[in-house]
Amino acid sequence: MKVDGIPRRSIQLAADGETVEIVDQTGLPHRFQTRRLATLEHAVVAIRDMQVRGAPLIGATAAYGLCFAVREDPSVASIENACAALLATRPTAVNLRWALDGMKARILALDETRRAGAAYARAAEICDEDVAINAAIGENGMDLLRSAASDKAEPVNVLTHCNAGWLATVDGGTALAPVYRAHDAGIGVHVWVDETRPRNQGAGLTAWELAAHGVPHTVIVDNAGGHLMREGRVDLCITGTDRTCTNGDVCNKIGTYLKALAASDNGIPFYVALPGPTIDWASESGADLQIEERSGEEVSTVTGETATGEVRTVRLTPAASPVFNPGFDVTPARLVTALITERGVAEASTDGLLSLYPERRRAAAG
Amino acid sequence: MKVDGIPRRSIQLAADGETVEIVDQTGLPHRFQTRRLATLEHAVVAIRDMQVRGAPLIGATAAYGLCFAVREDPSVASIENACAALLATRPTAVNLRWALDGMKARILALDETRRAGAAYARAAEICDEDVAINAAIGENGMDLLRSAASDKAEPVNVLTHCNAGWLATVDGGTALAPVYRAHDAGIGVHVWVDETRPRNQGAGLTAWELAAHGVPHTVIVDNAGGHLMREGRVDLCITGTDRTCTNGDVCNKIGTYLKALAASDNGIPFYVALPGPTIDWASESGADLQIEERSGEEVSTVTGETATGEVRTVRLTPAASPVFNPGFDVTPARLVTALITERGVAEASTDGLLSLYPERRRAAAG
Repeated sequence: MKVDGIPRRSIQLAADGETVEIVDQTGLPHRFQTRRLATLEHAVVAIRDMQVRGAPLIGATAAYGLCFAVREDPSVASIENACAALLATRPTAVNLRWALDGMKARILALDETRRAGAAYARAAEICDEDVAINAAIGENGMDLLRSAASDKAEPVNVLTHCNAGWLATVDGGTALAPVYRAHDAGIGVHVWVDETRPRNQGAGLTAWELAAHGVPHTVIVDNAGGHLMREGRVDLCITGTDRTCTNGDVCNKIGTYLKALAASDNGIPFYVALPGPTIDWASESGADLQIEERSGEEVSTVTGETATGEVRTVRLTPAASPVFNPGFDVTPARLVTALITERGVAEASTDGLLSLYPERRRAAAG
Repeated sequence: MKVDGIPRRSIQLAADGETVEIVDQTGLPHRFQTRRLATLEHAVVAIRDMQVRGAPLIGATAAYGLCFAVREDPSVASIENACAALLATRPTAVNLRWALDGMKARILALDETRRAGAAYARAAEICDEDVAINAAIGENGMDLLRSAASDKAEPVNVLTHCNAGWLATVDGGTALAPVYRAHDAGIGVHVWVDETRPRNQGAGLTAWELAAHGVPHTVIVDNAGGHLMREGRVDLCITGTDRTCTNGDVCNKIGTYLKALAASDNGIPFYVALPGPTIDWASESGADLQIEERSGEEVSTVTGETATGEVRTVRLTPAASPVFNPGFDVTPARLVTALITERGVAEASTDGLLSLYPERRRAAAG
C-alpha cells in the first residue's frame, strides 16, 4: 500500500539484497519509522517486541531472520539454533512455525554453499504468496462492496474491528483488502474503525494505514457500532480472524462477537476475510478453542502521546481493582454472513469451506 | 455508602449546617478528595466542571447552590439570578430544572426572612427522597440477586456498564443499589465492570466505589462482556438508564445495547434500574429520541495516571483521523428482561410501567 504516495510493503528487501526494512509498528500512530533488520537478533527483537505483528508478517520476518543466520553460518547447528530463537518469540504463532518448517525443508537438503541463496529465495516466495493471497481476497471481497455501492448514492459504509490491514500482512491486508481494492477502483468507501480496546489496534494501526493510503474513515469507540447499525449508518462489516473452525465459527479479537450480534439484529451482512492457511481443520467448532488470557496491564493502562509530543503510559483503573483480559472471542457461524478467502466467497459452514477447499474433503475421506 | 469504613453521601451538609461537602469526582479513581461548597459560584463550578455528575446528584447540588444564594440575598432577583446560573451549567439535565423549580415553588411563597431556612429544608428533602428511592430500588432488585444466588454455590456474577452507583446519586446508586443491598445482606456478589469508553466511568468510578465499599469486582474492556456471557460467567446484567420511554425502550450510555444483545443471545436476564422520575412519559419509543453527539476529544484522548503519579491526557488516534462520539444508544424493550424501580419490578412495556405508575393511566385517560 502507499505511505505518502509511495508504495511500500510492511517488510521489504533492501537494495543491498541482504537486509530488510520493516515498518516499526510500536511507534504508530504517532511516529512512522522504519527499521533495518540485518541479523538474527534484529529479527528476534522485531517479533518479540511487536515491532511487527500479524500472523503473515511474523512468518515473513522469521523467514528473513533465518536468512540472516544462514548467511552468517549455514551449518545445521546454526539453522537449528536460529529456528529455536525465532520460535521462542511468539510461541503460539502458527504461521511462524509454518514459515520456518518450510524454510528448513528447502535449505537443509542443499549443501552449505547453496543454503543462503535458497533461504532468501524461499523468504521472498513466502512474502509474494501472502501478497497474492491478499490480492485475491481483495478481488473476491470487492464484488460485495460493489454490489452494496450500487444500491445507494453515498459511499459504502464498512465497519471493521482490530487491524487486519496491510500492517498485519506483508501487503494488502485481509479484512481491509476488499476496502483498498474497492477504493483504488473508484468505488466510494468509508470505514468505521473500532478503536479495539485493550490494545487499540484500530485507533492506532487501522486508522493510521487507512489515512496513509487516503481511504476515508472515522474512529469510534467499541461501544458505538451497535448504535450506528441501528441508525442505518453501516452497510456491512468485515473483520479478519485468527482461526476459523471447520463449522465456520471464527475466533477473532475480543469484541468481534458483539458486532456480529448487532449486525444480525439489524439485518446487516457480517463478513469475515481470511487466508486459507488460517483455517484450523483440526477444530470442529469454537467450543474446541482455548481463549488466551493476556496481561491485565493491557486493560489497566493505555499508551498515547501527550500534547507536548511525549509517548506516555497512563493507568485507568484504581490500583485496588482486579482486571481480566481475554484476548479473543468466538463468533458462531450463524452470525457470519459469509467467509471471504483467496479462493472465493462461501457460506460459514463445513459445506461452504469444503466447496472452496475440496482437497480437504478428499483428505477427510482418505 | 462507605469509604474506608466510614459511611458518607456523595453530597452532605457540613457540621456548620450551612456549607456542604462533596466528593470531587474529577480526581477519581486516582485521588479521593472532598470539596467544601459554600457559595453559589462553588456549586456552579462543581456541576459545570463535573466534580459532581449523575442526574440526581446534579439536582441536589443545584438545590444547595440556590440555598447559598438565598442565605446571602433572599430577594427574588437573587433567586432568579442563581437559578439562571445553575441551569446554564448543564442545559440538558432534566433533574436540575426539576430541583430548582421545586425549590422556587417552596420559597418564593414565603417572606424573605424565612426563605433561607425553607431552602435548606427543601434541599435536604431532595437528598433524602433520592436516598429513599434508591433504597427501594435496592430492596426490589435484591430479590432478583437472591434468587440467582440460590441456584448456585459461587457468588452471583453481575455485569454492569457505566456508573449508576452512589457517585451518580446522593447515596445508594440505581443499578448498583441491588448489588450493595445484596452484598450488605451477606449474599455473595461479584461485579464485572465494563470500563465504559470513552469517558471510562466504569474503570474510574464504578470500580472505585465498589472497591471503597468492599464489593468484589473485576474491570474488563467493553469488548469482553459478550465472551464472558458465552462462557457462562455472567448470571445477570443490571444497568441504569438516562431516559425510559413509555414502551420500555431505554436510552443509556453508548454500548448498553451491545450488552443487551449478548445477554439475549445467551439467555441471561438483562435488568434496567431506574427511579420513576427518569421515565419520559412524553416519549413513546426510542425512535423519538435524539442522541447527543459529544466531543471527539473523548474518543481521541484518554486521561490517567503515570507511573510517577502525574495525571496526564494522551492521544490515542492519528492526528489525521476523524472521530465520531455518540453519547448514548437505545436498547429496545424486547431485549430488557424487566425494569427495577422504587415501586417494584415490571415488564419493559407500556402495561408494565402503568402497572407501577397507575396515576399515569388516569392522566392519560383524563
